[in-house]
Amino acid sequence: MGSARRTVRLPGPFTMRSGGVLPRVDVAYETWGALSPAKDNVLLLVTGLSPSAHARCSAEDPTPGWWEEMIGPGLAIDTDRFHVVCVNSLGSPHGSTSPASIDPRTDAPYRLTFPVLTIEDIASAAREALRALGLARVRAVVGPSLGGMTALAYAMQFPDEVDALVTISSAARATPFAIAIRSVQREAIRSDPDWRGGAYDQPGPVRGLRVARKLGLITYRSAAEWRQRFSRERVDVRTPGAGPFDVEFEIEAYLEMHAQKFVGTFDANCYLYLSRCMDLFDVAEHGGSVEAGLARIRARKTLVVGVETDFLFPIDQQAEIALLLERAGRDVRFVRLPSIQGHDSFLVDYDRFGPTVGSFLGEIS
Amino acid sequence: MGSARRTVRLPGPFTMRSGGVLPRVDVAYETWGALSPAKDNVLLLVTGLSPSAHARCSAEDPTPGWWEEMIGPGLAIDTDRFHVVCVNSLGSPHGSTSPASIDPRTDAPYRLTFPVLTIEDIASAAREALRALGLARVRAVVGPSLGGMTALAYAMQFPDEVDALVTISSAARATPFAIAIRSVQREAIRSDPDWRGGAYDQPGPVRGLRVARKLGLITYRSAAEWRQRFSRERVDVRTPGAGPFDVEFEIEAYLEMHAQKFVGTFDANCYLYLSRCMDLFDVAEHGGSVEAGLARIRARKTLVVGVETDFLFPIDQQAEIALLLERAGRDVRFVRLPSIQGHDSFLVDYDRFGPTVGSFLGEIS
Repeated sequence: MGSARRTVRLPGPFTMRSGGVLPRVDVAYETWGALSPAKDNVLLLVTGLSPSAHARCSAEDPTPGWWEEMIGPGLAIDTDRFHVVCVNSLGSPHGSTSPASIDPRTDAPYRLTFPVLTIEDIASAAREALRALGLARVRAVVGPSLGGMTALAYAMQFPDEVDALVTISSAARATPFAIAIRSVQREAIRSDPDWRGGAYDQPGPVRGLRVARKLGLITYRSAAEWRQRFSRERVDVRTPGAGPFDVEFEIEAYLEMHAQKFVGTFDANCYLYLSRCMDLFDVAEHGGSVEAGLARIRARKTLVVGVETDFLFPIDQQAEIALLLERAGRDVRFVRLPSIQGHDSFLVDYDRFGPTVGSFLGEIS
Repeated sequence: MGSARRTVRLPGPFTMRSGGVLPRVDVAYETWGALSPAKDNVLLLVTGLSPSAHARCSAEDPTPGWWEEMIGPGLAIDTDRFHVVCVNSLGSPHGSTSPASIDPRTDAPYRLTFPVLTIEDIASAAREALRALGLARVRAVVGPSLGGMTALAYAMQFPDEVDALVTISSAARATPFAIAIRSVQREAIRSDPDWRGGAYDQPGPVRGLRVARKLGLITYRSAAEWRQRFSRERVDVRTPGAGPFDVEFEIEAYLEMHAQKFVGTFDANCYLYLSRCMDLFDVAEHGGSVEAGLARIRARKTLVVGVETDFLFPIDQQAEIALLLERAGRDVRFVRLPSIQGHDSFLVDYDRFGPTVGSFLGEIS
């Protein structure tokens, strides 16, 4: 079984927003649906922190993608209409140039010599990748979570190249609460002796990554969901030889299972860079205020989606984006979903997300 | 400057609720206000996870206590009326018998051979300490956070010995969300190689404790408070030689300052035991349901206080305690405070907590 992942090399060196140059940048991507002869049906999908470009299965790679239920013929992101291009973020270990890549100037991995990464860089690299593929314009840019920030940055930096914008469970800038959570996640990784100041050999700071991932999982769901789902249930069988603080409650087993799946699939330094770039994102840097920054967006239609139980990217942050775009005279739809699964609802509650995204995209045809 | 801390040794071995016996138990305590000749003005104060019995300054120890603004002549907990006894929890490193104490059977520290600790044990040890001091009955038992659970357990286990109950920012049982948070805190400690399976020498797993404490701090306050207080402010001067992921935002500096204050003052194994005992607490174990458990409480008056911005012990948990006590025919006052400081409001928002607690205690005289 092959991978559907392709990689495009950007034509020249890539200058990072906060300084530093990457002499050579590759961007991994996958596509679904035919490109129209006029090349006017491109839908760019940008991702959250951890996913790869494998958003949906394909002939080359039949494993389900991270948004399998949302993308396909007749689905919310309709591959009968759109040429969907999902781009792996700059800085991600899933194929694009990242801190885990070899710096051609030194023939050694970048590790912490990788320049400071910003959301704007991720958006720019995605745009350069599309141009290298001969796609100058996007019909829609769609992104959840970190990808929702990337979508905003894309529409803000390249306002004439985006027809429609969909930003999901995202924010115009990070709150101190979210910065604090991510800071503690990074500290868990950095304080693992196996991190070695970023110069680890594989498998690297596994214990720190586990703690970081578990804390992430806590902030991706909601207390209400876990009350319904796990309550105070105990695991049936505790691990033989388990100490007094090992897994005892079902909620702990859930965290454990997901942490084990994550560790080994994600490079720790990449995690640090992608985590920090969310802290740094602030639309207000584009024009002096959040309002001025958002006013740079000229998409003809925008969909802003938020979830009431999200406490990592709380819904008032999505409401703010919608309100300020509206004040700037843009055509905005704001959808407030009552999903119980918190920030991660877009990965779970397809009954709500499917129709919400699908009906919006249906109207921009 | 001396310490006002005294220690009382319980008269015999102490049997733990989940099995195991402590052959010798000391309980550290401090007192303020005179004991009445009839010994009928005892107010027992039980604490959160980290504080010592030093709730207020005294002649022997003039340093401010952890509830300095709440206790004193004419204050909410009025030492002109009450003989206030603050008891350090069993399992805490601040003077009471704990995993850091010497097991007289082995002449070595208990460490992980300390039996499973429960909230009920903490309440029982406090009660035995009072009896050893000749105090058979309490006018009121007052506790915030973990101490609010201890106060519930006290009133439930010794219903005929408690006149009034004050439980603040507490719960009848832990939610899976709170268990998850604490589980990750414990994992940060346990995955620090310096923990050594509990057999560390001082200073022990400092890096793990730092991460645990920072995560605690995040859950003790509220996102709304931090937005007001820190917004996205940057620190003026970054540490020389700081790496790309060191403190950059004010919120990170705040976490750093508090973590540094905590580490070195709290034993890691004690932290694990006290953390776990909150997960294990479930009033429903006393009678088959939360309702039946709470119905065992026969205090003549109960005050239940909660804070709307608390997401670690969310206010519907305090509402549940009040509702079920009321259904059981008890005289209950439920106060819902709009403080912005989250779970820790009882340590900060004295303008609200002072009158709330003071007026209730005034009515039980």
